[in-house]
Amino acid sequence: MSKLTDVPKRILIGRALRSDRLGETLLPKRIALPVFASDPLSSVAYAPGEVLLVLSIAGVSAYHFSPWIAVAVVVLMFTVVASYRQNVHAYPSGGGDYEVANTNLGPRAGLTVASALLVDYVLTVAVSISSGVENLGSAVDFVIEHKVLSAMIMILLLTLMNLRGVKESGNLFAIPTYVFVGAVFVMIAWGAWRGLVMGDTMEAPTAGLEIKAEHQGIAGFALVFLLLRAFSSGCAALTGVEAISNGVPAFRKPKSKNAATTLALMGALAVTMFCGIIGLAMATDVKMAEKPATDLLENGVPVGSEYVQHPVISQVAEAVFGNGSFLFIVLAAATALVLFLAANTAYNGFPLLGSILAQDRYLPRQLHTRGDRLAFSNGIVLLAGAAMLLVWIYDADSTKLIQLYIVGVFVSFTLSQIGMVRHWNRHLRAERDPAARRRMHRSRAINTFGAFFTGMVLVVVLATKFTHGAWVALLGMVIFYGTMSAIRKHYDRVSEEIAAAEGPSDDSVRPSRVHSIVLVSKVHKPTLRALAFAKLTRSDRLEALSISVDPVETKALREEWERRGINVPLKILDSPYREITRPVVEYVKGLRSENPRDAVSVYIPEYVVGRWYEHLLHNQSALRLKGRLLFTPGVMVTSVPYQLESSELAKRRAKKRAEWNAPGAVRRGPVDAPRPKDPAAKG
Amino acid sequence: MSKLTDVPKRILIGRALRSDRLGETLLPKRIALPVFASDPLSSVAYAPGEVLLVLSIAGVSAYHFSPWIAVAVVVLMFTVVASYRQNVHAYPSGGGDYEVANTNLGPRAGLTVASALLVDYVLTVAVSISSGVENLGSAVDFVIEHKVLSAMIMILLLTLMNLRGVKESGNLFAIPTYVFVGAVFVMIAWGAWRGLVMGDTMEAPTAGLEIKAEHQGIAGFALVFLLLRAFSSGCAALTGVEAISNGVPAFRKPKSKNAATTLALMGALAVTMFCGIIGLAMATDVKMAEKPATDLLENGVPVGSEYVQHPVISQVAEAVFGNGSFLFIVLAAATALVLFLAANTAYNGFPLLGSILAQDRYLPRQLHTRGDRLAFSNGIVLLAGAAMLLVWIYDADSTKLIQLYIVGVFVSFTLSQIGMVRHWNRHLRAERDPAARRRMHRSRAINTFGAFFTGMVLVVVLATKFTHGAWVALLGMVIFYGTMSAIRKHYDRVSEEIAAAEGPSDDSVRPSRVHSIVLVSKVHKPTLRALAFAKLTRSDRLEALSISVDPVETKALREEWERRGINVPLKILDSPYREITRPVVEYVKGLRSENPRDAVSVYIPEYVVGRWYEHLLHNQSALRLKGRLLFTPGVMVTSVPYQLESSELAKRRAKKRAEWNAPGAVRRGPVDAPRPKDPAAKG
Repeated sequence: MSKLTDVPKRILIGRALRSDRLGETLLPKRIALPVFASDPLSSVAYAPGEVLLVLSIAGVSAYHFSPWIAVAVVVLMFTVVASYRQNVHAYPSGGGDYEVANTNLGPRAGLTVASALLVDYVLTVAVSISSGVENLGSAVDFVIEHKVLSAMIMILLLTLMNLRGVKESGNLFAIPTYVFVGAVFVMIAWGAWRGLVMGDTMEAPTAGLEIKAEHQGIAGFALVFLLLRAFSSGCAALTGVEAISNGVPAFRKPKSKNAATTLALMGALAVTMFCGIIGLAMATDVKMAEKPATDLLENGVPVGSEYVQHPVISQVAEAVFGNGSFLFIVLAAATALVLFLAANTAYNGFPLLGSILAQDRYLPRQLHTRGDRLAFSNGIVLLAGAAMLLVWIYDADSTKLIQLYIVGVFVSFTLSQIGMVRHWNRHLRAERDPAARRRMHRSRAINTFGAFFTGMVLVVVLATKFTHGAWVALLGMVIFYGTMSAIRKHYDRVSEEIAAAEGPSDDSVRPSRVHSIVLVSKVHKPTLRALAFAKLTRSDRLEALSISVDPVETKALREEWERRGINVPLKILDSPYREITRPVVEYVKGLRSENPRDAVSVYIPEYVVGRWYEHLLHNQSALRLKGRLLFTPGVMVTSVPYQLESSELAKRRAKKRAEWNAPGAVRRGPVDAPRPKDPAAKG
Repeated sequence: MSKLTDVPKRILIGRALRSDRLGETLLPKRIALPVFASDPLSSVAYAPGEVLLVLSIAGVSAYHFSPWIAVAVVVLMFTVVASYRQNVHAYPSGGGDYEVANTNLGPRAGLTVASALLVDYVLTVAVSISSGVENLGSAVDFVIEHKVLSAMIMILLLTLMNLRGVKESGNLFAIPTYVFVGAVFVMIAWGAWRGLVMGDTMEAPTAGLEIKAEHQGIAGFALVFLLLRAFSSGCAALTGVEAISNGVPAFRKPKSKNAATTLALMGALAVTMFCGIIGLAMATDVKMAEKPATDLLENGVPVGSEYVQHPVISQVAEAVFGNGSFLFIVLAAATALVLFLAANTAYNGFPLLGSILAQDRYLPRQLHTRGDRLAFSNGIVLLAGAAMLLVWIYDADSTKLIQLYIVGVFVSFTLSQIGMVRHWNRHLRAERDPAARRRMHRSRAINTFGAFFTGMVLVVVLATKFTHGAWVALLGMVIFYGTMSAIRKHYDRVSEEIAAAEGPSDDSVRPSRVHSIVLVSKVHKPTLRALAFAKLTRSDRLEALSISVDPVETKALREEWERRGINVPLKILDSPYREITRPVVEYVKGLRSENPRDAVSVYIPEYVVGRWYEHLLHNQSALRLKGRLLFTPGVMVTSVPYQLESSELAKRRAKKRAEWNAPGAVRRGPVDAPRPKDPAAKG
């Protein structure tokens, strides 16, 4: 296992692993943390700001509630982390929330979770990229001036990277994530030192501004509602926590324990950073407003629509490190990078979840194939397209996009935790060992609390954000749910239709003889090969069939046939309108109605070519003929390929495609053990 | 032959003819004339105006040259008609200019003519539609105010009509064309009566305007050049004359004689209308300017960019009939309709020429099939796309588009006439009968004069219009020429590669045994059918092959296999990465390298479905597997279809498609006799 020893070499050379070596690439905790946690860790780049932003509606005085909201977020984070540590132990197979809900609550709950997760992946891309652009924009003006464009370009870049199949490497994640975490901790420590020990007054760039409260003197129910909305926004810090529960198989042994430890570590880091940034924001007097153009006042005058409101993390960094200082730039760059990595997470998760859903026949079967390039490409393009649409509609504004974000997360949190409670209930019925029962009781208590708390948050999020955009996310979920149920229904119907009846014989009229037909246009190598193959496969009757579209050519064919002494009878059908398909189909139908117990085997010589435009020049008639013949019962169609020289090109391309690296390979871990349907059955 | 007796019924009901009845639909002259002549006849709607427009550059005084230019156009028209009467007699097969040039001057000349004709078809659509919109606009303001939009909508309508395969009917052409011709003759007669007999002063709406000459006092070479340019523009009246020579097989017997008569009739009508309109324009003092906004003065002041310059034919009609009078409206409507029909001509000619070119392997073979919907559709979409692009670039301005138009026409005229001269030379060498020789000498003299005259016009057109837009047409021709030569080269190379060697055996290693493999995923009806078919086609070895992507499913398959007592050995390949294609391809390759003289026959059970989205849900793996297998030499792939219930839908759709009417069916005539390669060889 060379994962850590050759870090510099791998960064420089990026040696791709062949997929049959995939089993060896297990992640140590220090690599697993950044691989799985870039999403939740990076969310501290926007979550604190969202809290202040919502509070500002009641004026700057409401800011003093922010520590309480931070506490609530921390408690929620601990709850969720504790709950998922139970998931990780109970479901080491990496099925994640979908599997937990599917197994314990039934397919509808599973499909709901799946829909929520799919929507969430789209939003992860949209929110992370938008926020990344905003953070980069605090250091580079051009980016913030062309925000939508920059976000679109970033999404396109990520899409191309993933379509090309860039190998996801642990180090790619490790370095920026650790730089980011390190820089944030340095900032918190340095800020605390300057503020508490040195007694410096640090001032954020917005410290001198005033906030015009949109609702002055807010109180009572309205205040509670506002605080709940601020809390909902702060919950953005929790997105992506569930990623580790999908990735247990990628951990080194003991897998579940390592995954649980990594979860705890991630929770601790996220919470510390979140609270630290909120604290620094209070200390440096950051001002954020939902509508900065009108609600932020400089000497009593609104700052106007030209004003750019920078993220809290960059304002705080400016206060602590100084604008344009080296550390300020490093933090801005690392923040942007980690956010882009978080977006990349979705590019891995989306097709991966797709392949699990395909296994359960909610999506086309071919998505199930691991690393099938075409299948992954479709998923990636769908993801990128949806994310770009959102970025475009919402002007790459992370604040607006976050309104949509949290619903899906908490739908899957809640259903997953309810599923866990059921899981323990079932196990408790079977378990007799008192120690095990005690552990299970404890786990169940944790999951029950988790289900209760996340469920409450879900209600709060729905109530406070529905009109602000959560309805869009719900609509997306409904669309995914509907599409996937329809696909499943189709597969079920087909599978019923084709189910083999009992007993040895099935088809009512079983064919007893084969009548073979070789389609011939000229006597050339492809035709001769098809004839040779057809002769080899012995059938009861064999004839060559040619469609005469030109008497001169037909005459030449007949003469050549005789001259060469080909010992297969040549049948020629006239086609005055130069049609190919119709005469052949009618001839075959005629044979079938004369001898209903004969099967007809049609051999078609096919050119194998290498370039896409060559396809337009060859085989078109053969393709269409085949399409029509397949509708006729009792017919089979054999393609006898003749490889033209140019086909070598296509062969090489196909080989290259086969060596393609599917996104998400690292985080999926090895697949030697298939995902068991219900691990409870084993326990 | 019910063509004429059921005119009203056919107009109302439009009963579509089955293509096997195509042979019966031969055209009498009175129907053939409008079918083939809507293009040249309709061009009198814009050609006279173009002459005046160019002359106006030298000021209104230059208008007195217009009768001389009309005379030149008449002489040219007579020459071309006389020449093509020779073509029609010599080539009754309907190959047209392409065939004449190809046969007599070689494939390069043929391909040049073909390229010129293809460009011409595009321009016929663009010019006719633009002019039609302008003529309609003289009666309906909305149309002229949204000229580009109206033109685009018309092109889209024609495209949809032709894509749906609306049956071209002789009557569809006859009525508007005769109404148009009749209305123009009534106008000329009524105008002559009013002017010459009654002595009325008829004034065109632009009679009161003055023209600011762009070049005052033009003389000498510049004047000659200007007159030549005006003549070139007037030559637009000749476009489409060659159409009859393509359509000889559609005439009733004696085909050539009837076609020649129709040609003469068309020439006489076109010439009379052209001269009549020029004469009336002079009499009613029509003023046309190339840049009306600045060069047309009303009381010494430019009319400005708001001014709409109506076509000469509508200005004359206004002067003769009065603005808004019934006959004025009838003429405007008939003119527009005939121009749209002229555009429709190209929709028939373009795919038809394509099918002839496909026969000579300059275009993909499948275009050759008569009435192949897909092939025709591609041609129609290409034609419409190119025409719309031109209309959009040139603002649907017929004057600008005409600059591009005439080049192609005269390229094909000239090459065709040169080809005819060669044709007669060759025949004269063989002919001994003095009477026949005399006729040939006469024909050769006519064609020589035609070649000379049209060649001169081509030079004039190129010289006077190259920078005005003719280069665009030439570029289009070069692109068509290059593409078609490349396609031909490809086919030649392939045909060389696949040419069968002499002697009975060809393949170096001829397979001696067949190893058959049936791909199995589950035991269901499609699999059982594939197994039954494979057994029926006796091979030396038969086994079933399954790829294990899930141990549970594999175990179930094995048990089911044994339980049912299927007497075919079941081989199972492991695929930990859930790939299907790679293990199968590698297994087959392994078999081949163990026994190089074995052919491998792979049977794939395939679902036949009816809806497009069902294709996404089925057979994808099979399709890709098949694609990969075909690259392996010595392998044949057999699809054993299983028709799902929904496949009935697709079957019905396919039937409907088969009954589709290809555009251009009427003008092509029957196809019972194939186009002979060189009729000279028979004479």
